[in-house]
Amino acid sequence: SVNPDLASERQTPSFSVEKLTAWLDGGAEHTLIRRAVVEAIDRDPVFSRENQYFQSQNERYEAAVRKSVHLQKKMHEMGWTENGPEFKYIYRALSGDIAFLLHRIFMRSISMLGSDKQIAKWIPLASQYQLIGSYAQTELGHGTYLQGLETTAVFDIATQEFILNTPKISAMKWWPGDMGRSATHTVVFAQLYVHGKCYGVHPFIVQIRSLQDHSLCPGITAGDIGPKMNFEHVDNGYLMLQNVRVPRENMLNKFCEVQPDGTYVRRGSQKINYFTMTTVRISLMSDEVITPLMKACTIAIRYSVVRRQSKLEPGKQEAKILDYQTQQEKLLPQLAAAYAFHSINNYLEELFDKGYREIQRRNFDTLPELHAFSSGFKAMITQYCTSAVEICLRACGGHGYSSLSGLPSLYTKILASCIYEGENTILLLQTARFLIKCFMAASAGQSVPPSVTYLAAVKPRKCPAKNKLDFLRPDIYTEAYQHMAVRLVSSTAAKLQNLIQSGVKKHEAWNQCTVQLAQAAKAHCHYITVKNFAETVEKLETKAGIQKIMKHLCDLFALHGIFSNAGDFLHDGYISGAQMDMVTASYLDLLPVIRKDAVPLVDAFDFSDKTLNSALGSYDGQVYQRLYEWAQKSPTNKQMSPAYERYLKPLLHNTLSKL
Amino acid sequence: SVNPDLASERQTPSFSVEKLTAWLDGGAEHTLIRRAVVEAIDRDPVFSRENQYFQSQNERYEAAVRKSVHLQKKMHEMGWTENGPEFKYIYRALSGDIAFLLHRIFMRSISMLGSDKQIAKWIPLASQYQLIGSYAQTELGHGTYLQGLETTAVFDIATQEFILNTPKISAMKWWPGDMGRSATHTVVFAQLYVHGKCYGVHPFIVQIRSLQDHSLCPGITAGDIGPKMNFEHVDNGYLMLQNVRVPRENMLNKFCEVQPDGTYVRRGSQKINYFTMTTVRISLMSDEVITPLMKACTIAIRYSVVRRQSKLEPGKQEAKILDYQTQQEKLLPQLAAAYAFHSINNYLEELFDKGYREIQRRNFDTLPELHAFSSGFKAMITQYCTSAVEICLRACGGHGYSSLSGLPSLYTKILASCIYEGENTILLLQTARFLIKCFMAASAGQSVPPSVTYLAAVKPRKCPAKNKLDFLRPDIYTEAYQHMAVRLVSSTAAKLQNLIQSGVKKHEAWNQCTVQLAQAAKAHCHYITVKNFAETVEKLETKAGIQKIMKHLCDLFALHGIFSNAGDFLHDGYISGAQMDMVTASYLDLLPVIRKDAVPLVDAFDFSDKTLNSALGSYDGQVYQRLYEWAQKSPTNKQMSPAYERYLKPLLHNTLSKL
Repeated sequence: SVNPDLASERQTPSFSVEKLTAWLDGGAEHTLIRRAVVEAIDRDPVFSRENQYFQSQNERYEAAVRKSVHLQKKMHEMGWTENGPEFKYIYRALSGDIAFLLHRIFMRSISMLGSDKQIAKWIPLASQYQLIGSYAQTELGHGTYLQGLETTAVFDIATQEFILNTPKISAMKWWPGDMGRSATHTVVFAQLYVHGKCYGVHPFIVQIRSLQDHSLCPGITAGDIGPKMNFEHVDNGYLMLQNVRVPRENMLNKFCEVQPDGTYVRRGSQKINYFTMTTVRISLMSDEVITPLMKACTIAIRYSVVRRQSKLEPGKQEAKILDYQTQQEKLLPQLAAAYAFHSINNYLEELFDKGYREIQRRNFDTLPELHAFSSGFKAMITQYCTSAVEICLRACGGHGYSSLSGLPSLYTKILASCIYEGENTILLLQTARFLIKCFMAASAGQSVPPSVTYLAAVKPRKCPAKNKLDFLRPDIYTEAYQHMAVRLVSSTAAKLQNLIQSGVKKHEAWNQCTVQLAQAAKAHCHYITVKNFAETVEKLETKAGIQKIMKHLCDLFALHGIFSNAGDFLHDGYISGAQMDMVTASYLDLLPVIRKDAVPLVDAFDFSDKTLNSALGSYDGQVYQRLYEWAQKSPTNKQMSPAYERYLKPLLHNTLSKL
Repeated sequence: SVNPDLASERQTPSFSVEKLTAWLDGGAEHTLIRRAVVEAIDRDPVFSRENQYFQSQNERYEAAVRKSVHLQKKMHEMGWTENGPEFKYIYRALSGDIAFLLHRIFMRSISMLGSDKQIAKWIPLASQYQLIGSYAQTELGHGTYLQGLETTAVFDIATQEFILNTPKISAMKWWPGDMGRSATHTVVFAQLYVHGKCYGVHPFIVQIRSLQDHSLCPGITAGDIGPKMNFEHVDNGYLMLQNVRVPRENMLNKFCEVQPDGTYVRRGSQKINYFTMTTVRISLMSDEVITPLMKACTIAIRYSVVRRQSKLEPGKQEAKILDYQTQQEKLLPQLAAAYAFHSINNYLEELFDKGYREIQRRNFDTLPELHAFSSGFKAMITQYCTSAVEICLRACGGHGYSSLSGLPSLYTKILASCIYEGENTILLLQTARFLIKCFMAASAGQSVPPSVTYLAAVKPRKCPAKNKLDFLRPDIYTEAYQHMAVRLVSSTAAKLQNLIQSGVKKHEAWNQCTVQLAQAAKAHCHYITVKNFAETVEKLETKAGIQKIMKHLCDLFALHGIFSNAGDFLHDGYISGAQMDMVTASYLDLLPVIRKDAVPLVDAFDFSDKTLNSALGSYDGQVYQRLYEWAQKSPTNKQMSPAYERYLKPLLHNTLSKL
């Protein structure tokens, strides 16, 4: 039975939950497919995550491998294919708790960087799992700076082989997933040497484990890098190479080749490769970043209407904690952000699909803009969502801190997204470089990509809002964000130029501006997100109440951003102190409005209880009962601890002196 | 041998590291004692934390018990006593990785709340470990709101006993440390009923496990609450009571008693009890909050001068990442914060010692101020330090995410400090209540406690700074913080009054102001911290360069706060946009100055490698070597995973269909 405190929240939603779910899925037909996948997976005991919070790293890895192998069978059974409509829902339904993700990157890198002949040889082997691949790029000493990789591949004309080596400890490959224990092969990135000349970093297919008995191949040292903050299910590995020889044909040679006589040939454009890295950043947003935030919101908001604590009104029943303004102000902006990022992510995915089609037509014009988009948004969204999940965790007090709430694992996992696929600060600075360049060009009257034409537009220098209701107008707040982004980009560009003109070297001047450059890039992305959310809401159907509630969320997202970054808007007086008070008033006024729909808004995300895997977040709100039931299953309750006989008993029986 | 990149950082410190360490310890004589304790503990293999990152929850608990029992022996051996000068260093040296902390709270509560007779009976038993105590206050359904506790204790005149019961699942005791598996006794807080009348929450000593064989006593259900984000070494437990009878003498009765005939007698003042809770908040700051931040800074800063990545100047060697402005801006403000909080913590400890002496003289005048101090600073410092540790973790990129860096465990542990001993938002609102009350009183010309007289002072309405160097003047920035705090308190007080005058009920008006009230309380604490740090620096000896570097850190802490909360200072024009640019310039200028001393500044914290337990943070900077050595010891590398025979082999040998 549903806890009445949760049931009552579902009685009078201002909109149709089912319609909102369908919108989130991109159509009711997708909702049907998604639910069928979720049901099939939730029903299958092999995919159970029931014991996840009790498992050791070894057990998590074994479970992930078991599930991945089982998934092959399941897909066959269900008639799901990698190109089918179900595929994108499988990962979500499994909460990403599976192995062989790097195997997929292994295949993707061969498809992108390999010749037709290499593709014909390796892809069938990999797709039939006659080998398990990984992708060995990062080294102990190098992550973001790929040119600095130290692994070497020397061409030996005599044998027509490359000899791969790890010349020093910092050159050891470190972090590649699926490599610590599973992979038989990997793509190794190494500095290519021919006749003593270095040609830079190139990819080589290297076998690391026997296909017969999985023992390490000669010259290979490999293993697991040990415990991490999360990702216990992945065998992130290390790899050392000692005079490992691979045939000439194992260098992926679509774009460059070493010929038998040692002649190095480069052909075609490598730009498409950068585009691949760029698309990966966008493709992970939904599953790894936005979905976890939606889960955290679901857990925290459901819990906050079940949890009653202290009295809001003297003499009355204890209040639901979501009725406190401070709790609303913690959680509801995060909920609004989840919807905002869902919307911008749809936009980015479309943009990248379009870009991909252009690039296939050999039109590379949009590449710099797409690269700036993917870098900036990856950084901005991962950072925002990571903080948001942490806020959700802390908003659940002590029970949020229990692993059984599901929130600690969501947090420790999403945190990694700030680091992988490009460290966020470095990504922001890449976007900033694009912005500065475009700002300069636009100032000189040159044309710039569509997303940044706003940098050159002349706009009012004061916000025209006259009362707090004006700040619920998307034109007013979007304009404010735009103004703020322009100001941060232009003032940093001016600082940069001043430094250079005063004789500071260019690279040093750049370094002295990086704190502000990163801020400017974030401001740009924040502006685009607000603008996109407002435009999306504008286009929504007005029926079923969806547009109305989404407009509230959009307003909340926008005003929360102004409220939280007030200095950026007040700095040049675009928004005055009095106007900031109006922002604050409108912002706080929105909280109780959205609070009424808070539970329906998280119900619309439509996570099954098994997907959430949270004692606090289940649909029925039986929080305390579930915490107790789950705790009883903990291995810490399976037996009396050996600590009793060994330490406690002698202590209590006062035999301390004999210890 | 020390990594040359780290060694070079230690060659020309601007101050004497040893002198700074002595200052941190409160005198060179304390440094000597501390080092002797650390050495004795680091040398003893029983206290080793070598395998900590590989251990399961069960293993962590067993290790904590083993260490705690061994510690008794060690203290005897070394001649250390609980009242001796060494005691405070033991916990730091063990990194808190021990059991029986709640046993100490059990003893403290009996000492505070028990009669002389009760103390005479229970304290000797507890101090000789003839029983192990816990402290059962929090329930599944109640944490912060103690009046809402649901456990009952009904007095039975016939047998002169109290009958304790857990009437519903939400009344189950949940979270008490040492209770899940260790404790034989606990202090249970329950609603007292006599003759059907409820007298509110009272403490009762209840035996929960047999002293003979540790089995649960009749009517007791107890166990471990399962996995948490950290604190695996603690057996946080649950407890259900079913008609558990304890004699009348087991109610702690210093302040109130049930007489044999059922007469309820209250005597003396209970104020002292609140003071106990208040002092606990202050006493945990150093070990649980500031020390972890110092460790995180040590790890992240040492790593940042060893890690080289990408080129700052074209054609040159790759740069140390600490030479990038963005990395300096991440880490150095956190380092400054560690010193700032060390300083305010010393101040608070002195204040509370003084307060304690006053209270023993039955002078309770300072209680409201002390309560406001402890609540606000607990919230502000734990929140700040938790964010700071997270920044340190993220600033170390992928390797920071490895458990072996030590940063994940520091983060997941310090995060709990935002929740326990009073949830931070609730604490801030308690401080805010005090501030509003004092502001009203001061406005009405009444006298207020010394820490808040500033609320009534008339001050300039514009910051007098004329150039960026003016912002290095403590009077200038302290005044700015003061102005900002006054503005936030007074404007929120005005909003509150307006709401009430416009007919909103008092409790509802309060709720509508809580977001801003919490901000005002934080601003007050921030102001006091800056003021205290500036005054501390002022008083430092000018020799040995300590004052100079501390002045830089104080400036950085203050300017970082203005830079990061610019809106609060710009709002009413106290600081203008042009002045904010000066703040930013001075703030960024400080970074390369402090960067030169960054390593000496963390060396001064004087953590041994074993205390840090970090592959990234050791004194010698042999980061990559250590990561590799430690990873090899991971249980994931001890054997071939059973996943190979079970899942991978059949998959690779293409027997998928037979699975």
